[in-house]
Amino acid sequence: MTQTAEMLETYPADLGRIDREKLIRCVEACIACAQSCTACADACLSEQSVEQLTKCIRSNLDCADLCDTTARVLSRHTGYDANLTRSVLDACAMACQACGDECANHADRHDHCRICAEACKRCEKACRELIDSLG
Amino acid sequence: MTQTAEMLETYPADLGRIDREKLIRCVEACIACAQSCTACADACLSEQSVEQLTKCIRSNLDCADLCDTTARVLSRHTGYDANLTRSVLDACAMACQACGDECANHADRHDHCRICAEACKRCEKACRELIDSLG
Amino acid sequence: MTQTAEMLETYPADLGRIDREKLIRCVEACIACAQSCTACADACLSEQSVEQLTKCIRSNLDCADLCDTTARVLSRHTGYDANLTRSVLDACAMACQACGDECANHADRHDHCRICAEACKRCEKACRELIDSLG
Amino acid sequence: MTQTAEMLETYPADLGRIDREKLIRCVEACIACAQSCTACADACLSEQSVEQLTKCIRSNLDCADLCDTTARVLSRHTGYDANLTRSVLDACAMACQACGDECANHADRHDHCRICAEACKRCEKACRELIDSLG
Repeated sequence: MTQTAEMLETYPADLGRIDREKLIRCVEACIACAQSCTACADACLSEQSVEQLTKCIRSNLDCADLCDTTARVLSRHTGYDANLTRSVLDACAMACQACGDECANHADRHDHCRICAEACKRCEKACRELIDSLG
Repeated sequence: MTQTAEMLETYPADLGRIDREKLIRCVEACIACAQSCTACADACLSEQSVEQLTKCIRSNLDCADLCDTTARVLSRHTGYDANLTRSVLDACAMACQACGDECANHADRHDHCRICAEACKRCEKACRELIDSLG
Repeated sequence: MTQTAEMLETYPADLGRIDREKLIRCVEACIACAQSCTACADACLSEQSVEQLTKCIRSNLDCADLCDTTARVLSRHTGYDANLTRSVLDACAMACQACGDECANHADRHDHCRICAEACKRCEKACRELIDSLG
Repeated sequence: MTQTAEMLETYPADLGRIDREKLIRCVEACIACAQSCTACADACLSEQSVEQLTKCIRSNLDCADLCDTTARVLSRHTGYDANLTRSVLDACAMACQACGDECANHADRHDHCRICAEACKRCEKACRELIDSLG
């Protein structure tokens, strides 16, 4: 059991109808994606071809911010609000899709973009699966 | 001219069709709302009636995170993506609405909730006006 | 009275011996500096000479993160911890100094770096004055 | 190899003399601690004894913010600044120590505080070991 799962297990009140497996997977995907995006933006900055990577860096920065915020919102259950959760997940999935597409464009030249694109795609998928499970 | 406006003036590339006045107002409203929400959550924690304010604190924390992230996304113009901007603004407006409504419920007893509710309402309005201007 | 000052006025418990004026000035300087740094990083990304601005962008990103976190820590008074406050202010002042110096190197060519350097210097000063007042 | 390690492997420039193992361990400890602290603050909010946990919640919120920012700063290597890294790690270690001590006070009654205290202690240790390795 991961630490995210352990923390969820100890929540002292009712979690409502949310799918625990999908919730845990989404929090962990957001956290991993945020770190990849922060590191990818910095790696892009150190490439000689940085002037061709400025859109990628911007997408990385947006995606890192959205993923961090989404992981935080999803880690809170007190006063749960399904509409807000869905809206935040929508924005996060869109940021992951945009960043994943942009990183994929550079994946054959830059390994950091390849790994980051995969993290974005995993996170987009985890967000969408959690949205679908919210009913 | 505010510092946010000054920084926008110095952006070296084309800003696209975005409404500058509404953009500046929204960035500043997000920043102010984030600070109010962080302070309101902490003030609620110090109230003797904290057990009646737990939903308010949770809304404050979500709203602070969303507003901080939205201010950041809106402060970036390189590789502008109108769909992502709209989606982030939607999530932020919803967080502001939820937090503003919750704080308003306690506004007659707690001045921090009254001031925070006003900041949330201003930020929600600024987000929605910017969304409308995106076309 | 600014909104930050208004929120501080409504805090329902004892604030301790902290200098209110210096506290408010520091929170506001952190918030303004964070926005400038996020915008300056993005403006640097859109300069044709971006490959000469990569250290500046990195300093901007660090400084924005430190300033955002410092504004949050300073907006909380419940369970106040002077040692932690001092340590966070030290790190923030150092990030502002590093970013202010780096931006100053480009201030004659880029107005965003000039305005951002000024925001960093103001924030560094506000942090150091608050540290001195903590005794 | 973890994703954090994979991203570090792909950094295209010189990393300098930093200890890679300790760096990776510290980034991962910060990320895990931030999530635990956000979840612990929310779990405390849902305890019937919330009025006895307000200092714990405040420590959780500070620690989450410091850990998130530290993970970001440590994920950037372009224009590396050892003095800033040390200062940020000092602040993070202090936040982890304060939060770990506070959570430990409630560990026998609340499992979320017990797990969070462990995450804080691991993160404090990882920060101090990285500081020591910076020379």
